[in-house]
Amino acid sequence: MGAVNIRGAAPQQDRGPKQDRGPKQDRSRATRRRLLESAVECLAAHGWSGSTVTVVAGHAGVSRGAAQHHFPTREDLFTAAVEFVAEERSRALRELPRPASVPEAVDTLVGLYTGTLFRAALQLWVAASNEPQLGPRVTALEARIGRETHRMAVELLGADERRPAVRETVQGLLDMARGLGLANLLTDDGARRARVVAQWAALVEEALAGG
Amino acid sequence: MGAVNIRGAAPQQDRGPKQDRGPKQDRSRATRRRLLESAVECLAAHGWSGSTVTVVAGHAGVSRGAAQHHFPTREDLFTAAVEFVAEERSRALRELPRPASVPEAVDTLVGLYTGTLFRAALQLWVAASNEPQLGPRVTALEARIGRETHRMAVELLGADERRPAVRETVQGLLDMARGLGLANLLTDDGARRARVVAQWAALVEEALAGG
Repeated sequence: MGAVNIRGAAPQQDRGPKQDRGPKQDRSRATRRRLLESAVECLAAHGWSGSTVTVVAGHAGVSRGAAQHHFPTREDLFTAAVEFVAEERSRALRELPRPASVPEAVDTLVGLYTGTLFRAALQLWVAASNEPQLGPRVTALEARIGRETHRMAVELLGADERRPAVRETVQGLLDMARGLGLANLLTDDGARRARVVAQWAALVEEALAGG
Repeated sequence: MGAVNIRGAAPQQDRGPKQDRGPKQDRSRATRRRLLESAVECLAAHGWSGSTVTVVAGHAGVSRGAAQHHFPTREDLFTAAVEFVAEERSRALRELPRPASVPEAVDTLVGLYTGTLFRAALQLWVAASNEPQLGPRVTALEARIGRETHRMAVELLGADERRPAVRETVQGLLDMARGLGLANLLTDDGARRARVVAQWAALVEEALAGG
Protein backbone atom coordinates (compact mmCIF):
# COMPACT_ATOMS: atom_id res chain seq x y z
CA MET A 1 0.00 0.00 0.00
CA GLY A 2 2.42 2.65 1.12
CA ALA A 3 5.06 1.44 -1.31
CA VAL A 4 3.29 3.14 -4.19
CA ASN A 5 3.22 6.48 -2.45
CA ILE A 6 6.81 6.08 -1.33
CA ARG A 7 7.87 5.75 -4.95
CA GLY A 8 6.22 9.10 -5.70
CA ALA A 9 3.41 7.95 -8.03
CA ALA A 10 0.68 10.53 -8.52
CA PRO A 11 -2.35 9.81 -6.33
CA GLN A 12 -5.37 8.46 -8.22
CA GLN A 13 -8.21 10.49 -6.74
CA ASP A 14 -6.51 13.75 -7.46
CA ARG A 15 -7.21 13.57 -11.20
CA GLY A 16 -10.00 15.73 -12.58
CA PRO A 17 -10.99 14.68 -16.11
CA LYS A 18 -11.27 18.23 -17.48
CA GLN A 19 -8.19 19.69 -15.87
CA ASP A 20 -4.72 19.96 -17.20
CA ARG A 21 -2.76 17.33 -15.28
CA GLY A 22 0.56 19.19 -15.13
CA PRO A 23 -0.17 21.90 -12.53
CA LYS A 24 -2.33 19.56 -10.50
CA GLN A 25 0.43 16.99 -10.33
CA ASP A 26 2.88 19.73 -9.37
CA ARG A 27 0.59 20.82 -6.54
CA SER A 28 0.20 17.23 -5.41
CA ARG A 29 3.96 16.74 -5.40
CA ALA A 30 4.46 19.96 -3.46
CA THR A 31 1.87 18.88 -0.86
CA ARG A 32 3.54 15.48 -0.54
CA ARG A 33 6.92 17.09 -0.03
CA ARG A 34 5.53 19.51 2.56
CA LEU A 35 4.02 16.58 4.47
CA LEU A 36 7.32 14.71 4.45
CA GLU A 37 9.28 17.75 5.64
CA SER A 38 6.72 18.32 8.39
CA ALA A 39 6.88 14.66 9.42
CA VAL A 40 10.65 14.96 9.88
CA GLU A 41 10.36 18.20 11.85
CA CYS A 42 7.58 16.85 14.09
CA LEU A 43 9.45 13.61 14.72
CA ALA A 44 12.62 15.46 15.72
CA ALA A 45 10.71 17.87 17.96
CA HIS A 46 7.96 15.70 19.49
CA GLY A 47 9.12 12.10 19.06
CA TRP A 48 7.09 9.24 17.64
CA SER A 49 4.28 9.28 20.18
CA GLY A 50 3.74 13.03 19.66
CA SER A 51 3.78 12.82 15.87
CA THR A 52 0.34 11.73 14.72
CA VAL A 53 -0.91 12.28 11.16
CA THR A 54 -3.14 15.06 12.52
CA VAL A 55 -0.18 16.87 14.10
CA VAL A 56 1.92 16.55 10.94
CA ALA A 57 -0.95 17.67 8.68
CA GLY A 58 -1.55 20.72 10.92
CA HIS A 59 2.14 21.60 10.84
CA ALA A 60 2.14 21.33 7.03
CA GLY A 61 -1.05 23.39 6.71
CA VAL A 62 -2.83 20.49 4.97
CA SER A 63 -6.17 18.91 5.91
CA ARG A 64 -6.12 15.52 7.59
CA GLY A 65 -8.03 14.07 4.64
CA ALA A 66 -5.51 15.37 2.13
CA ALA A 67 -2.69 13.95 4.23
CA GLN A 68 -4.35 10.52 4.33
CA HIS A 69 -4.90 10.70 0.60
CA HIS A 70 -1.11 10.82 0.18
CA PHE A 71 -0.30 8.48 3.06
CA PRO A 72 -3.08 6.08 4.06
CA THR A 73 -1.45 5.11 7.36
CA ARG A 74 0.88 6.72 9.88
CA GLU A 75 3.50 4.06 9.10
CA ASP A 76 3.29 4.97 5.39
CA LEU A 77 3.89 8.62 6.21
CA PHE A 78 6.87 8.01 8.46
CA THR A 79 8.66 5.36 6.46
CA ALA A 80 8.29 7.66 3.42
CA ALA A 81 9.68 10.46 5.60
CA VAL A 82 12.76 8.42 6.49
CA GLU A 83 13.28 7.49 2.84
CA PHE A 84 12.95 11.18 2.03
CA VAL A 85 15.57 12.00 4.66
CA ALA A 86 17.91 9.37 3.23
CA GLU A 87 17.51 10.73 -0.27
CA GLU A 88 18.02 14.34 0.82
CA ARG A 89 21.15 13.27 2.67
CA SER A 90 22.52 11.36 -0.32
CA ARG A 91 21.81 14.29 -2.60
CA ALA A 92 23.49 16.79 -0.28
CA LEU A 93 26.54 14.53 -0.05
CA ARG A 94 26.80 14.03 -3.81
CA GLU A 95 26.74 17.79 -4.26
CA LEU A 96 29.48 18.46 -1.73
CA PRO A 97 32.87 19.53 -3.04
CA ARG A 98 35.30 16.67 -2.59
CA PRO A 99 37.02 17.26 0.77
CA ALA A 100 40.63 18.41 0.52
CA SER A 101 41.84 16.23 3.40
CA VAL A 102 40.91 13.32 5.65
CA PRO A 103 40.07 15.65 8.59
CA GLU A 104 37.71 17.62 6.34
CA ALA A 105 36.06 14.37 5.21
CA VAL A 106 35.68 13.21 8.83
CA ASP A 107 34.06 16.55 9.71
CA THR A 108 31.60 16.17 6.85
CA LEU A 109 30.72 12.60 7.85
CA VAL A 110 30.20 13.50 11.52
CA GLY A 111 27.98 16.37 10.38
CA LEU A 112 25.56 13.78 8.97
CA TYR A 113 24.78 12.63 12.51
CA THR A 114 23.93 15.96 14.07
CA GLY A 115 20.95 18.11 13.21
CA THR A 116 17.27 17.53 12.53
CA LEU A 117 17.61 14.68 10.03
CA PHE A 118 19.54 12.46 12.42
CA ARG A 119 17.26 13.32 15.36
CA ALA A 120 14.23 12.31 13.32
CA ALA A 121 15.86 9.05 12.24
CA LEU A 122 16.84 8.33 15.85
CA GLN A 123 13.25 8.80 17.04
CA LEU A 124 12.09 6.43 14.35
CA TRP A 125 14.69 3.75 15.12
CA VAL A 126 13.74 3.74 18.77
CA ALA A 127 10.02 3.69 17.94
CA ALA A 128 10.64 0.85 15.47
CA SER A 129 12.22 -1.23 18.23
CA ASN A 130 8.85 -1.25 20.04
CA GLU A 131 6.24 -0.90 17.27
CA PRO A 132 5.76 -4.14 15.32
CA GLN A 133 4.11 -2.28 12.42
CA LEU A 134 7.10 -0.02 12.00
CA GLY A 135 9.92 -2.49 12.69
CA PRO A 136 10.51 -4.35 9.38
CA ARG A 137 10.18 -1.22 7.23
CA VAL A 138 12.57 0.86 9.26
CA THR A 139 15.03 -2.02 9.60
CA ALA A 140 15.17 -2.53 5.81
CA LEU A 141 15.53 1.18 5.21
CA GLU A 142 18.22 1.52 7.85
CA ALA A 143 20.25 -1.27 6.23
CA ARG A 144 20.08 0.53 2.88
CA ILE A 145 21.04 3.88 4.40
CA GLY A 146 23.91 2.20 6.22
CA ARG A 147 25.31 0.73 3.01
CA GLU A 148 24.97 4.05 1.17
CA THR A 149 26.62 6.01 3.93
CA HIS A 150 29.49 3.55 4.04
CA ARG A 151 30.02 3.87 0.27
CA MET A 152 30.03 7.67 0.56
CA ALA A 153 32.46 7.55 3.47
CA VAL A 154 34.90 5.38 1.51
CA GLU A 155 34.75 7.83 -1.37
CA LEU A 156 35.09 10.99 0.73
CA LEU A 157 38.01 9.54 2.68
CA GLY A 158 39.69 8.24 -0.48
CA ALA A 159 40.01 4.88 1.31
CA ASP A 160 41.15 1.71 -0.46
CA GLU A 161 39.00 -1.11 0.89
CA ARG A 162 41.06 -3.80 -0.81
CA ARG A 163 43.69 -3.25 1.88
CA PRO A 164 43.28 -5.20 5.12
CA ALA A 165 41.27 -3.61 7.96
CA VAL A 166 40.42 -0.45 5.96
CA ARG A 167 36.76 -1.46 5.85
CA GLU A 168 36.64 -1.84 9.64
CA THR A 169 38.47 1.46 10.17
CA VAL A 170 35.82 3.28 8.13
CA GLN A 171 32.94 1.42 9.81
CA GLY A 172 34.26 2.25 13.28
CA LEU A 173 34.50 5.90 12.30
CA LEU A 174 30.82 5.90 11.27
CA ASP A 175 29.91 4.12 14.51
CA MET A 176 31.74 6.87 16.39
CA ALA A 177 29.87 9.52 14.38
CA ARG A 178 26.56 7.84 15.30
CA GLY A 179 27.56 7.79 18.96
CA LEU A 180 28.46 11.47 18.80
CA GLY A 181 25.03 12.17 17.32
CA LEU A 182 23.39 10.36 20.23
CA ALA A 183 25.53 12.28 22.75
CA ASN A 184 24.22 15.49 21.19
CA LEU A 185 20.58 14.57 21.76
CA LEU A 186 20.06 16.07 25.22
CA THR A 187 22.73 18.75 25.40
CA ASP A 188 24.82 20.71 22.92
CA ASP A 189 27.95 18.61 22.73
CA GLY A 190 29.66 20.69 20.02
CA ALA A 191 32.81 21.78 21.88
CA ARG A 192 33.70 18.31 23.13
CA ARG A 193 32.79 16.81 19.77
CA ALA A 194 35.21 19.08 17.89
CA ARG A 195 38.12 17.90 20.06
CA VAL A 196 37.21 14.20 19.73
CA VAL A 197 36.73 14.52 15.98
CA ALA A 198 40.12 16.22 15.54
CA GLN A 199 41.89 13.39 17.36
CA TRP A 200 39.98 10.58 15.66
CA ALA A 201 40.52 12.18 12.26
CA ALA A 202 44.25 12.02 12.96
CA LEU A 203 43.97 8.32 13.96
CA VAL A 204 41.95 7.51 10.84
CA GLU A 205 44.35 9.39 8.59
CA GLU A 206 47.30 7.48 10.02
CA ALA A 207 45.49 4.13 9.77
CA LEU A 208 44.48 4.74 6.15
CA ALA A 209 47.97 5.88 5.16
CA GLY A 210 49.74 3.00 6.93
CA GLY A 211 47.95 -0.34 7.40
CA MET B 1 9.88 14.31 46.09
CA GLY B 2 11.43 11.51 44.08
CA ALA B 3 14.87 12.42 45.38
CA VAL B 4 14.11 10.84 48.73
CA ASN B 5 13.08 7.56 47.17
CA ILE B 6 16.03 7.65 44.79
CA ARG B 7 18.37 7.79 47.76
CA GLY B 8 16.76 4.68 49.15
CA ALA B 9 15.15 6.05 52.33
CA ALA B 10 12.52 3.79 53.85
CA PRO B 11 9.00 4.90 52.91
CA GLN B 12 7.04 6.56 55.78
CA GLN B 13 3.67 4.86 55.48
CA ASP B 14 5.17 1.43 55.59
CA ARG B 15 5.94 1.58 59.31
CA GLY B 16 3.69 -0.41 61.60
CA PRO B 17 4.13 0.59 65.27
CA LYS B 18 4.04 -2.96 66.65
CA GLN B 19 6.16 -4.66 64.07
CA ASP B 20 9.83 -5.30 64.04
CA ARG B 21 11.20 -2.83 61.49
CA GLY B 22 13.98 -5.02 60.14
CA PRO B 23 12.07 -7.57 58.07
CA LYS B 24 9.55 -4.94 56.93
CA GLN B 25 12.31 -2.70 55.70
CA ASP B 26 13.88 -5.66 53.95
CA ARG B 27 10.60 -6.41 52.24
CA SER B 28 10.21 -2.78 51.25
CA ARG B 29 13.70 -2.70 49.82
CA ALA B 30 13.07 -5.91 47.89
CA THR B 31 9.83 -4.49 46.45
CA ARG B 32 11.62 -1.29 45.47
CA ARG B 33 14.35 -3.25 43.75
CA ARG B 34 11.84 -5.45 41.91
CA LEU B 35 10.05 -2.32 40.66
CA LEU B 36 13.30 -0.84 39.40
CA GLU B 37 14.32 -4.02 37.61
CA SER B 38 10.85 -4.25 36.05
CA ALA B 39 11.03 -0.60 34.96
CA VAL B 40 14.28 -1.30 33.13
CA GLU B 41 12.92 -4.43 31.47
CA CYS B 42 9.66 -2.74 30.42
CA LEU B 43 11.51 0.29 29.07
CA ALA B 44 13.83 -1.87 26.99
CA ALA B 45 10.96 -3.99 25.69
CA HIS B 46 8.09 -1.53 25.25
CA GLY B 47 9.72 1.92 25.15
CA TRP B 48 8.71 4.95 27.18
CA SER B 49 5.15 5.29 25.89
CA GLY B 50 4.43 1.62 26.65
CA SER B 51 5.94 1.73 30.14
CA THR B 52 3.34 3.15 32.47
CA VAL B 53 3.47 2.67 36.25
CA THR B 54 0.58 0.19 35.89
CA VAL B 55 2.52 -1.90 33.34
CA VAL B 56 5.67 -1.90 35.47
CA ALA B 57 3.78 -2.74 38.67
CA GLY B 58 2.04 -5.63 36.87
CA HIS B 59 5.36 -6.93 35.58
CA ALA B 60 6.82 -6.75 39.09
CA GLY B 61 3.78 -8.45 40.65
CA VAL B 62 3.15 -5.43 42.86
CA SER B 63 -0.10 -3.48 43.23
CA ARG B 64 -0.31 -0.08 41.56
CA GLY B 65 -0.79 1.53 44.99
CA ALA B 66 2.33 -0.11 46.39
CA ALA B 67 4.30 1.04 43.35
CA GLN B 68 3.11 4.62 43.83
CA HIS B 69 3.99 4.43 47.48
CA HIS B 70 7.62 3.88 46.45
CA PHE B 71 7.53 6.17 43.43
CA PRO B 72 4.85 8.88 43.49
CA THR B 73 5.22 9.74 39.80
CA ARG B 74 6.22 7.95 36.62
CA GLU B 75 9.23 10.29 36.31
CA ASP B 76 10.33 9.31 39.85
CA LEU B 77 10.18 5.64 38.94
CA PHE B 78 12.12 5.97 35.71
CA THR B 79 14.84 8.34 36.83
CA ALA B 80 15.37 6.06 39.83
CA ALA B 81 15.52 3.16 37.36
CA VAL B 82 18.25 4.85 35.33
CA GLU B 83 20.18 5.65 38.48
CA PHE B 84 19.78 2.00 39.47
CA VAL B 85 21.12 0.94 36.06
CA ALA B 86 24.10 3.27 36.45
CA GLU B 87 24.87 1.88 39.89
CA GLU B 88 24.55 -1.72 38.77
CA ARG B 89 26.83 -0.96 35.87
CA SER B 90 29.43 0.72 38.08
CA ARG B 91 29.31 -2.15 40.53
CA ALA B 92 29.71 -4.77 37.80
CA LEU B 93 32.69 -2.87 36.40
CA ARG B 94 34.36 -2.47 39.77
CA GLU B 95 34.05 -6.21 40.32
CA LEU B 96 35.56 -7.13 36.96
CA PRO B 97 39.04 -8.58 36.92
CA ARG B 98 41.42 -5.98 35.54
CA PRO B 99 41.66 -6.72 31.80
CA ALA B 100 44.96 -8.23 30.73
CA SER B 101 45.23 -6.17 27.54
CA VAL B 102 43.87 -3.12 25.73
CA PRO B 103 41.74 -5.28 23.37
CA GLU B 104 40.18 -7.01 26.38
CA ALA B 105 39.45 -3.63 27.97
CA VAL B 106 37.87 -2.36 24.73
CA ASP B 107 35.67 -5.46 24.58
CA THR B 108 34.53 -4.88 28.15
CA LEU B 109 33.75 -1.22 27.48
CA VAL B 110 31.80 -1.95 24.28
CA GLY B 111 29.86 -4.60 26.21
CA LEU B 112 28.46 -1.80 28.39
CA TYR B 113 26.53 -0.49 25.39
CA THR B 114 24.81 -3.66 24.31
CA GLY B 115 22.12 -5.49 26.24
CA THR B 116 19.08 -4.51 28.23
CA LEU B 117 20.64 -1.78 30.37
CA PHE B 118 21.77 0.27 27.40
CA ARG B 119 18.48 -0.27 25.55
CA ALA B 120 16.56 1.01 28.54
CA ALA B 121 18.82 4.06 28.86
CA LEU B 122 18.44 4.76 25.13
CA GLN B 123 14.65 4.71 25.40
CA LEU B 124 14.85 7.14 28.28
CA TRP B 125 17.25 9.52 26.52
CA VAL B 126 15.00 9.71 23.50
CA ALA B 127 11.90 10.17 25.67
CA ALA B 128 13.72 12.87 27.66
CA SER B 129 14.37 14.82 24.47
CA ASN B 130 10.60 15.27 24.06
CA GLU B 131 9.21 15.13 27.61
CA PRO B 132 9.83 18.36 29.53
CA GLN B 133 9.21 16.63 32.87
CA LEU B 134 11.86 14.05 32.19
CA GLY B 135 14.48 16.19 30.44
CA PRO B 136 16.46 17.90 33.24
CA ARG B 137 16.62 14.78 35.43
CA VAL B 138 17.83 12.50 32.70
CA THR B 139 20.29 15.10 31.41
CA ALA B 140 21.88 15.51 34.84
CA LEU B 141 22.04 11.77 35.37
CA GLU B 142 23.50 11.19 31.93
CA ALA B 143 26.27 13.71 32.59
CA ARG B 144 27.17 11.86 35.81
CA ILE B 145 27.11 8.46 34.13
CA GLY B 146 29.25 9.85 31.31
CA ARG B 147 31.91 11.08 33.74
CA GLU B 148 31.92 7.80 35.66
CA THR B 149 32.18 5.70 32.52
CA HIS B 150 35.05 7.83 31.29
CA ARG B 151 36.91 7.37 34.57
CA MET B 152 36.39 3.61 34.40
CA ALA B 153 37.55 3.52 30.79
CA VAL B 154 40.78 5.36 31.63
CA GLU B 155 41.44 2.88 34.41
CA LEU B 156 40.61 -0.26 32.41
CA LEU B 157 42.72 0.90 29.46
CA GLY B 158 45.60 1.93 31.72
CA ALA B 159 45.59 5.27 29.86
CA ASP B 160 47.68 8.24 30.99
CA GLU B 161 45.51 11.30 30.48
CA ARG B 162 48.36 13.70 31.17
CA ARG B 163 49.68 12.90 27.72
CA PRO B 164 48.30 14.93 24.81
CA ALA B 165 45.21 13.63 22.99
CA VAL B 166 44.83 10.56 25.26
CA ARG B 167 41.64 12.00 26.73
CA GLU B 168 40.12 12.48 23.27
CA THR B 169 41.20 8.99 22.16
CA VAL B 170 39.35 7.47 25.12
CA GLN B 171 36.28 9.69 24.60
CA GLY B 172 36.10 8.77 20.92
CA LEU B 173 36.27 5.10 21.84
CA LEU B 174 33.28 5.51 24.17
CA ASP B 175 31.43 7.43 21.45
CA MET B 176 32.11 4.54 19.10
CA ALA B 177 30.85 2.07 21.71
CA ARG B 178 27.65 4.14 22.05
CA GLY B 179 27.22 4.17 18.26
CA LEU B 180 27.72 0.40 18.16
CA GLY B 181 25.02 0.04 20.81
CA LEU B 182 22.63 2.08 18.69
CA ALA B 183 23.46 -0.01 15.59
CA ASN B 184 22.45 -3.09 17.59
CA LEU B 185 18.98 -1.75 18.40
CA LEU B 186 17.03 -3.11 15.42
CA THR B 187 19.13 -6.07 14.32
CA ASP B 188 21.78 -8.30 15.87
CA ASP B 189 24.96 -6.54 14.83
CA GLY B 190 27.32 -8.86 16.76
CA ALA B 191 29.41 -10.25 13.88
CA ARG B 192 30.15 -6.87 12.31
CA ARG B 193 30.74 -5.35 15.75
CA ALA B 194 33.39 -7.94 16.61
CA ARG B 195 35.40 -7.05 13.50
CA VAL B 196 35.12 -3.29 14.07
CA VAL B 197 36.06 -3.66 17.73
CA ALA B 198 39.12 -5.79 16.89
CA GLN B 199 40.43 -3.20 14.44
CA TRP B 200 39.76 -0.18 16.64
CA ALA B 201 41.21 -1.90 19.70
CA ALA B 202 44.44 -2.19 17.69
CA LEU B 203 44.30 1.49 16.66
CA VAL B 204 43.55 2.65 20.21
CA GLU B 205 46.34 0.47 21.62
CA GLU B 206 48.79 2.02 19.19
CA ALA B 207 47.56 5.55 19.94
CA LEU B 208 47.87 5.02 23.70
CA ALA B 209 51.33 3.48 23.40
CA GLY B 210 52.63 6.15 21.01
CA GLY B 211 51.27 9.73 21.10
